[in-house]
Amino acid sequence: MAIDFRVTHTDASTSARLGVLTLSRGVEVATPAFMPVGTKGAVKSLSPDEVRGLGYGMILCNAYHLYLRPGHELIRRLGGLHRFMNWNGGILTDSGGYQIFSLAALRKVTAEGVEFRSHVDGSTHFFTPEKSIEVQASLGCDIAVCLDDVVGYPVEKSSAIAAVQRTTEWAKRCVATQKRVDPPLFGIVQGSTFPDLRTQSAEALVSLELDGYAIGGLSVGEPTEEMLQVLETTAPLLPRHLPRYLMGVGTPLDILDAVVRGIDLFDCVLPTRNARNGMLFTSNGRINIRNARYRDDARPVDPECGCALCSKYSRSYLRHLFQEKEIYAHRLASIHNLSYYSNAMRDIRNAIAAGTLSTLYTRFQAETEERDD
Amino acid sequence: MAIDFRVTHTDASTSARLGVLTLSRGVEVATPAFMPVGTKGAVKSLSPDEVRGLGYGMILCNAYHLYLRPGHELIRRLGGLHRFMNWNGGILTDSGGYQIFSLAALRKVTAEGVEFRSHVDGSTHFFTPEKSIEVQASLGCDIAVCLDDVVGYPVEKSSAIAAVQRTTEWAKRCVATQKRVDPPLFGIVQGSTFPDLRTQSAEALVSLELDGYAIGGLSVGEPTEEMLQVLETTAPLLPRHLPRYLMGVGTPLDILDAVVRGIDLFDCVLPTRNARNGMLFTSNGRINIRNARYRDDARPVDPECGCALCSKYSRSYLRHLFQEKEIYAHRLASIHNLSYYSNAMRDIRNAIAAGTLSTLYTRFQAETEERDD
Repeated sequence: MAIDFRVTHTDASTSARLGVLTLSRGVEVATPAFMPVGTKGAVKSLSPDEVRGLGYGMILCNAYHLYLRPGHELIRRLGGLHRFMNWNGGILTDSGGYQIFSLAALRKVTAEGVEFRSHVDGSTHFFTPEKSIEVQASLGCDIAVCLDDVVGYPVEKSSAIAAVQRTTEWAKRCVATQKRVDPPLFGIVQGSTFPDLRTQSAEALVSLELDGYAIGGLSVGEPTEEMLQVLETTAPLLPRHLPRYLMGVGTPLDILDAVVRGIDLFDCVLPTRNARNGMLFTSNGRINIRNARYRDDARPVDPECGCALCSKYSRSYLRHLFQEKEIYAHRLASIHNLSYYSNAMRDIRNAIAAGTLSTLYTRFQAETEERDD
Repeated sequence: MAIDFRVTHTDASTSARLGVLTLSRGVEVATPAFMPVGTKGAVKSLSPDEVRGLGYGMILCNAYHLYLRPGHELIRRLGGLHRFMNWNGGILTDSGGYQIFSLAALRKVTAEGVEFRSHVDGSTHFFTPEKSIEVQASLGCDIAVCLDDVVGYPVEKSSAIAAVQRTTEWAKRCVATQKRVDPPLFGIVQGSTFPDLRTQSAEALVSLELDGYAIGGLSVGEPTEEMLQVLETTAPLLPRHLPRYLMGVGTPLDILDAVVRGIDLFDCVLPTRNARNGMLFTSNGRINIRNARYRDDARPVDPECGCALCSKYSRSYLRHLFQEKEIYAHRLASIHNLSYYSNAMRDIRNAIAAGTLSTLYTRFQAETEERDD
């Protein structure tokens, strides 16, 4: 299986670029693109039709979670993840590296792979690069990523060196095990915030001729400036004709910061997780709808937004639903934030085409600020 | 404001009848009809469009809950409950009598009204018949009901007598306070399972010339046979040209049992609450989708159902969503059970028209049984 990626336009004054990513199932995704997160085979609270209707052609699911429950073999038997969750867009699966890293004390990394205990039932599992590819292929994802060895921030350089070496070795094994029918495979550049290690990691992975490149190990606590420095070091080392994917980032401002440094793909739980906590992005800054000031507020959450929340409901109603712990609050807030992100990505693409990214930067800065508390 | 109710057909061998209830906002509801419950201004997990799309023209909301939070005055200021929750169908509001009854030790009933402590924050409130009408009118419901004094089961006859007398007195005060612009008002027949008290209550309320009649105080623990006996006693005493509403009932079989005794309107949390617990009605009986036997089951929940769940997803996927506590499980299960109820009501109406209610009875008996555990 293969993907096709065409860079259709490059910004004159930044490294931003427009592209079209075509997946083997025929889905075309205009880049820069954001992928909503559907960790366990559902974008929390939303239907696939709603996610597609918001303009998303691709989502991220987590191989780690689906391996544990309901199991990749079960999903394969039932016709693959797309059919299982009734999603006809693209699916990129995370390898599980980051999730296993998050287990901290529950994991043990060796050269062979990583032994970990399930966060669900404490049972012991062993993930190898080969196993990760098998799991992702069983799910039938459109893009798989190599199992990587993730370190936190800050980290001793010696640990970062070891993690880069292991990530490289594991990527080689992923490539070696990949069959012709398996999904296209992205490598994940590691190296924490050390420029020489990022360079080393990128060069080693590029030599493996993967189908695309992810930049991992960021948004783990490092200052934004350091993250951007890593992107400036790393992105230029990645093949211009292949998609570049920044994992787990971020606010619309973070995304714009990464786009101008040459990144094409993003995923983040931020819009959906924040939505479930009542935090909403608006054209006038971030607000928390649970705030008492919205109790009696007849206005829509964002008067400039045309989503199913803002076109039909008041701030007062949404706050009421949150106060009463009504599930419908999560739906409406998730739709709104994903609508905001979809519009932000469209605006980014339009601004690249028009050469007006700098004006967008000012706007995103203002809109990312908290306004009500 | 007024409602219009026309009985269009009466069954030859039972007291079942077909009718059309037209609300002042122009909504027409074919009866017998079931009203999904939207206690706090939302049918849990579902959008108004989904509820309408399932064939429901009318829902029930609870004046008690909305009075406490966000407050009926707030909802009135924001244009009424229909606008607040973006529902263009009909709304019948419960008076709060039953909810206050459910507070048990937290309430104190006097001739004047009922003092109770909020289940939300423990604050003290005083509900009177007049206050209940004010609250329901502020919400802008299409049909209001009188504040009633509800007793449990079993109950001493002396208590049931007192409750009937109080319910009658309170109904008189509701009628006296009702203004021309206020919603149409239903009385609630009480009297526990005592035929003489039910008769006394019905006759007293009928003399008040209300816009319709509810039968309350049932489904509070009494055997089904006793409930049906009450319906047989009570329904014939109610005006034939007005709607009859059995509050808080029940399974499809209970509903059919009540329809043949002359009931037109129903509400119940059963389809939606059970859905959130994984209990689904199917053409082959009730199942609990969380049961391990569905782990690997590629079939739809009900192969004979065409709802958004059954047309798109496997039992395995829905079980997975429940296992993972994904909110989307609640949406899909609620849609399915409300689709089942909507179809059941349509089948009841068709069977009345065709004179084939008895065959439906056998089917509903089978479908109400649990099949998997």
